[in-house]
Amino acid sequence: MLVVMKKGTPEKKIQAAVNAIEKKGYTARPIPGGDRVSIGILYNTGSVDAAHFLGIDGVKEVIPVTKPYKLVSREFQQENTQIKVGDAVFGNGSFPVIAGPCAVESENQVLSIATSVKKAGATLFRGGAFKPRTSPYSFQGLGENGLKLLATVREETGLPIVTEVMDVETFDLVEKYADIVQIGTRNMQNFSLLKRAGKSVRPVILKRGMSALLQEWLMAAEYIMEEGNNNIILCERGVRTFVKHSRNTLDLSVVSAVKKESHLPVIVDPSHAAGVRDQVICLAYASAAMGADGVMIEVHNNPEEALSDGAQSLYPEQFFSVMEKMTAIHDIVRKP
Amino acid sequence: MLVVMKKGTPEKKIQAAVNAIEKKGYTARPIPGGDRVSIGILYNTGSVDAAHFLGIDGVKEVIPVTKPYKLVSREFQQENTQIKVGDAVFGNGSFPVIAGPCAVESENQVLSIATSVKKAGATLFRGGAFKPRTSPYSFQGLGENGLKLLATVREETGLPIVTEVMDVETFDLVEKYADIVQIGTRNMQNFSLLKRAGKSVRPVILKRGMSALLQEWLMAAEYIMEEGNNNIILCERGVRTFVKHSRNTLDLSVVSAVKKESHLPVIVDPSHAAGVRDQVICLAYASAAMGADGVMIEVHNNPEEALSDGAQSLYPEQFFSVMEKMTAIHDIVRKP
Amino acid sequence: MLVVMKKGTPEKKIQAAVNAIEKKGYTARPIPGGDRVSIGILYNTGSVDAAHFLGIDGVKEVIPVTKPYKLVSREFQQENTQIKVGDAVFGNGSFPVIAGPCAVESENQVLSIATSVKKAGATLFRGGAFKPRTSPYSFQGLGENGLKLLATVREETGLPIVTEVMDVETFDLVEKYADIVQIGTRNMQNFSLLKRAGKSVRPVILKRGMSALLQEWLMAAEYIMEEGNNNIILCERGVRTFVKHSRNTLDLSVVSAVKKESHLPVIVDPSHAAGVRDQVICLAYASAAMGADGVMIEVHNNPEEALSDGAQSLYPEQFFSVMEKMTAIHDIVRKP
Amino acid sequence: MLVVMKKGTPEKKIQAAVNAIEKKGYTARPIPGGDRVSIGILYNTGSVDAAHFLGIDGVKEVIPVTKPYKLVSREFQQENTQIKVGDAVFGNGSFPVIAGPCAVESENQVLSIATSVKKAGATLFRGGAFKPRTSPYSFQGLGENGLKLLATVREETGLPIVTEVMDVETFDLVEKYADIVQIGTRNMQNFSLLKRAGKSVRPVILKRGMSALLQEWLMAAEYIMEEGNNNIILCERGVRTFVKHSRNTLDLSVVSAVKKESHLPVIVDPSHAAGVRDQVICLAYASAAMGADGVMIEVHNNPEEALSDGAQSLYPEQFFSVMEKMTAIHDIVRKP
Repeated sequence: MLVVMKKGTPEKKIQAAVNAIEKKGYTARPIPGGDRVSIGILYNTGSVDAAHFLGIDGVKEVIPVTKPYKLVSREFQQENTQIKVGDAVFGNGSFPVIAGPCAVESENQVLSIATSVKKAGATLFRGGAFKPRTSPYSFQGLGENGLKLLATVREETGLPIVTEVMDVETFDLVEKYADIVQIGTRNMQNFSLLKRAGKSVRPVILKRGMSALLQEWLMAAEYIMEEGNNNIILCERGVRTFVKHSRNTLDLSVVSAVKKESHLPVIVDPSHAAGVRDQVICLAYASAAMGADGVMIEVHNNPEEALSDGAQSLYPEQFFSVMEKMTAIHDIVRKP
Repeated sequence: MLVVMKKGTPEKKIQAAVNAIEKKGYTARPIPGGDRVSIGILYNTGSVDAAHFLGIDGVKEVIPVTKPYKLVSREFQQENTQIKVGDAVFGNGSFPVIAGPCAVESENQVLSIATSVKKAGATLFRGGAFKPRTSPYSFQGLGENGLKLLATVREETGLPIVTEVMDVETFDLVEKYADIVQIGTRNMQNFSLLKRAGKSVRPVILKRGMSALLQEWLMAAEYIMEEGNNNIILCERGVRTFVKHSRNTLDLSVVSAVKKESHLPVIVDPSHAAGVRDQVICLAYASAAMGADGVMIEVHNNPEEALSDGAQSLYPEQFFSVMEKMTAIHDIVRKP
Repeated sequence: MLVVMKKGTPEKKIQAAVNAIEKKGYTARPIPGGDRVSIGILYNTGSVDAAHFLGIDGVKEVIPVTKPYKLVSREFQQENTQIKVGDAVFGNGSFPVIAGPCAVESENQVLSIATSVKKAGATLFRGGAFKPRTSPYSFQGLGENGLKLLATVREETGLPIVTEVMDVETFDLVEKYADIVQIGTRNMQNFSLLKRAGKSVRPVILKRGMSALLQEWLMAAEYIMEEGNNNIILCERGVRTFVKHSRNTLDLSVVSAVKKESHLPVIVDPSHAAGVRDQVICLAYASAAMGADGVMIEVHNNPEEALSDGAQSLYPEQFFSVMEKMTAIHDIVRKP
Repeated sequence: MLVVMKKGTPEKKIQAAVNAIEKKGYTARPIPGGDRVSIGILYNTGSVDAAHFLGIDGVKEVIPVTKPYKLVSREFQQENTQIKVGDAVFGNGSFPVIAGPCAVESENQVLSIATSVKKAGATLFRGGAFKPRTSPYSFQGLGENGLKLLATVREETGLPIVTEVMDVETFDLVEKYADIVQIGTRNMQNFSLLKRAGKSVRPVILKRGMSALLQEWLMAAEYIMEEGNNNIILCERGVRTFVKHSRNTLDLSVVSAVKKESHLPVIVDPSHAAGVRDQVICLAYASAAMGADGVMIEVHNNPEEALSDGAQSLYPEQFFSVMEKMTAIHDIVRKP
């Protein structure tokens, strides 16, 4: 249920309406929009009678919401959410590119890659300090030392930092260093982590689970938003199918579907989907053509010796030409 | 096993080599390439000793083939197969577009659509006269009358005709009217139909099965090629996954994978993958960006009343702008 | 729409009702049941007014049918279809077992296996004479010679023969030798073949397609039944998923689902699902426990040298103990 | 790498061998077996020369391990791990049954269900106090109050308690009340949670992820075992596929595959796989037939009003007959 306030209703009257609704036993949450404010009714079980709210001062209309997700839905908010980080904006029709290695390995490595990708036009830097690995015997990341190296990259290049957070225990730490915290595919339904992210001051990149339905993904975002953090960037990274010629199957159609259902920006990670370099390049072009709100791409200065995911990392010189073509494709698609 | 002949070996000497190989008990098949001829050894079970062939006059080298498919593989033929139909060429780096309705319904319908799509830049016309339908109670197509209407379209517009053939019984008939015969997703492993297609004078569009592995798809093409028809255009049309927001999941990464494994051209059908119009448009752009050798798109002059697949058919005016953007994207991707 | 006739309505009056319905422009098809006859209304598009039929002499009631499939649905026929072949009955609560090799290889092979499996309690013999193979270079079966060997098995052992038919062209031939014709997974939506099977005098085993939804499978059966052949045995054989530890994923829950939706018997083929012998045995027990109407199992006298699917074929001595345990499990499950 | 000690090597000499190996720079971990002790070499990257260890006193042989998982593999430990909880043993060939409601709702509810299922023969009680829910607006469980109600059940009935733990924060709490802690499907690769479980004094039920490969599942168990907790019970609960007639597709073949690869016991949860009651019953029989080391089944005294998963919960009277038949089937399958 969405209680739409009249245009120009003053803040004070909105608060009064919230109070009135809560007095009736409902949970109310104001949702600021472009030129009007709406109040979402959360947690109601079963249907609610619109007449309860129509009499409240300042209320223009009451709209039933047909989706199980609420705060993240376009029904609740029609305008795109825009998230500004450094020089990049997600959701305003531009095409920000996040680039960097899978894992932070050394100062020399991250600075070398960051300088390259910045020159090529990337506006954010990615790198993992805490790495979720299938095997306990694989390289697990440099931990806080990795985060410190990322901070050095920011100081030296000015690029904001995107890095993964794996658990509630290390959230404070990651949040301290990161400009955007990333929740990985295996944690998409780690609800405790989602709730913690909902209390973060940082924007969150929420990767789609390996076999998540659109609705489950949006519901995971709802967990974050419901705790108060509206700055969520969804990220498609391939789903698990029977296919054997790529690591995962990049589901580009979900980009269209997200935009229809939700006001949140959605980007694509072609690197983890493909698993091999030449597919990554083509899928990056396809992501731009699809109308995504950006991409996240792995670039490594020495892929042959990367501690993880070398085969899918682009060479810095490849990345230059990929940036150029992606941008040109994005421009064509954006043309009215 | 691939027996590579020296450059410039005359036709007569090649035939002599084939004879020599067959005399040793193997099946040999000459494969013409750009500047050399190779001879494929088929049907051998187990490994074959290269020494058997090295002594034959004109033989340069003998290459073991590591893939289960042979004639369709890049190991056998390094140059792209190019297939010319009317003004369109598949496989030469251009981007031919096949457009038209799902099913042929009436003369007025097909002529109206054909005129539109030709004006927009499509170079082939598609339309189904025999329709494979999940339910026996659904519209099954106009049959030969539909084929006649397609012939009228060709006469009036000059566009070559692409239409589906469903069985061996009607193959002669379809082949008589069609410029390209299409084998649908449900028939990808209808081996009798594949063998008949292998004897056809027409190029064949072979759609990928709903859950076919790359290798199975190439093997299906091998069935056709093995009977003597080299003019095969592979067509990705989405695979079946757990996903619910689109009819099928378009597996664009297979385009890269096909190009690596095979010399055959590969196009994309975004219409059947998506199932809804707005996704079709985005996926069409993504297909061009991916480097496909063309697309096949459903266009209908009156989608609301289409006898099948209306919801996924573009309006003619939409198709104009889609053509323009696809072409522009293709140009960017092709740039060196 | 289902027009239910009063109990004991004589044949003549039923025919009169059919005529009356068809006169109104509908297609009517009588469906014999245990103690009453119903008449199905086919091909109607959109809803039909029940009042049209209620006045017809002998009509008791008119029931709207909510499923897209009709003749195969439990709504149309509540009693289980029972199909008797030799000493076996499918659908009456017994547990007939079809056993034999994947492919017919020689007279010695088939007679040896048939003697073994008969002694163990199998009541039907299976063996392929026409083999659908992914590769054109694999063994394609002995063809008519294989069928003749199967006929010899029947003469020598009395076991009815189950064998696959691959196309319309060889249907007459296969039908001449087989007691049950089998349509394979790749042909589940080969609609021309289904229609031919609908005109056959033989019962048909219809294997589920590799990624077929329940509804698509029942629709394929509807194609057969709509042509007049009611004797259809559905066969689950595993579906394609992301899983790598078995060839396919045996979807046993579909057995329950089929029984709810349809009156047709449903059996299970654990051999093709598993791909390896020890899994086959466990899955055979699970199939009996699930309440299937029988199983089809591959047995080979010399699996190591089988021309196809040796790794999944049971040894004859294994099959003895498998038969015993399956039967005991079936007895427990059947107990009220 | 597995260093196998001679039979009867005294504890002291084993410790000396461990020290000797660690002195060479490797991580060594003794693995007690039936009649011999082996020492696993962990974390080695690349291959290790067996000669390094052959000279150590008491060493009989050195076996290279071919699997990426180590401690959980049958190569490391050939005998089945047996886990005793109350009167139940997992892994010794018996068939313990865990029964109870999806969520703990009230004292009356849990005591009523526990009394019923105990009478029917269940030897452990399940019930969720912390519930992972797709929607933040769904019932999230009673939390610690729920745990207290479970403790009451144990006091009153003597049944050990199985309950889910959702995060590291509440692990101490859950561990205090539970006899077995369960890690749910969405947390299978929540590595921080796995590591905490590895330090627990309680046995762990590790549910398979919704689209987890066998190897990923075993690797998740490796994370737990590597921290020192050997008492892991794997639980198959259905995987996500394209299928629509059941909530998930129960992958029974994984039971065979686990037993081949690992010494850990594996049970089946047919309730979450099926999603509807009649399928649950058949799949429970199939699980027993498959040779699983037990099952976990949802039973509710009032399914129509259950706060979650009512449609898949058995009625107590149904559960009686299900217990009886499962046990009988298990006896048949176990017979030599």
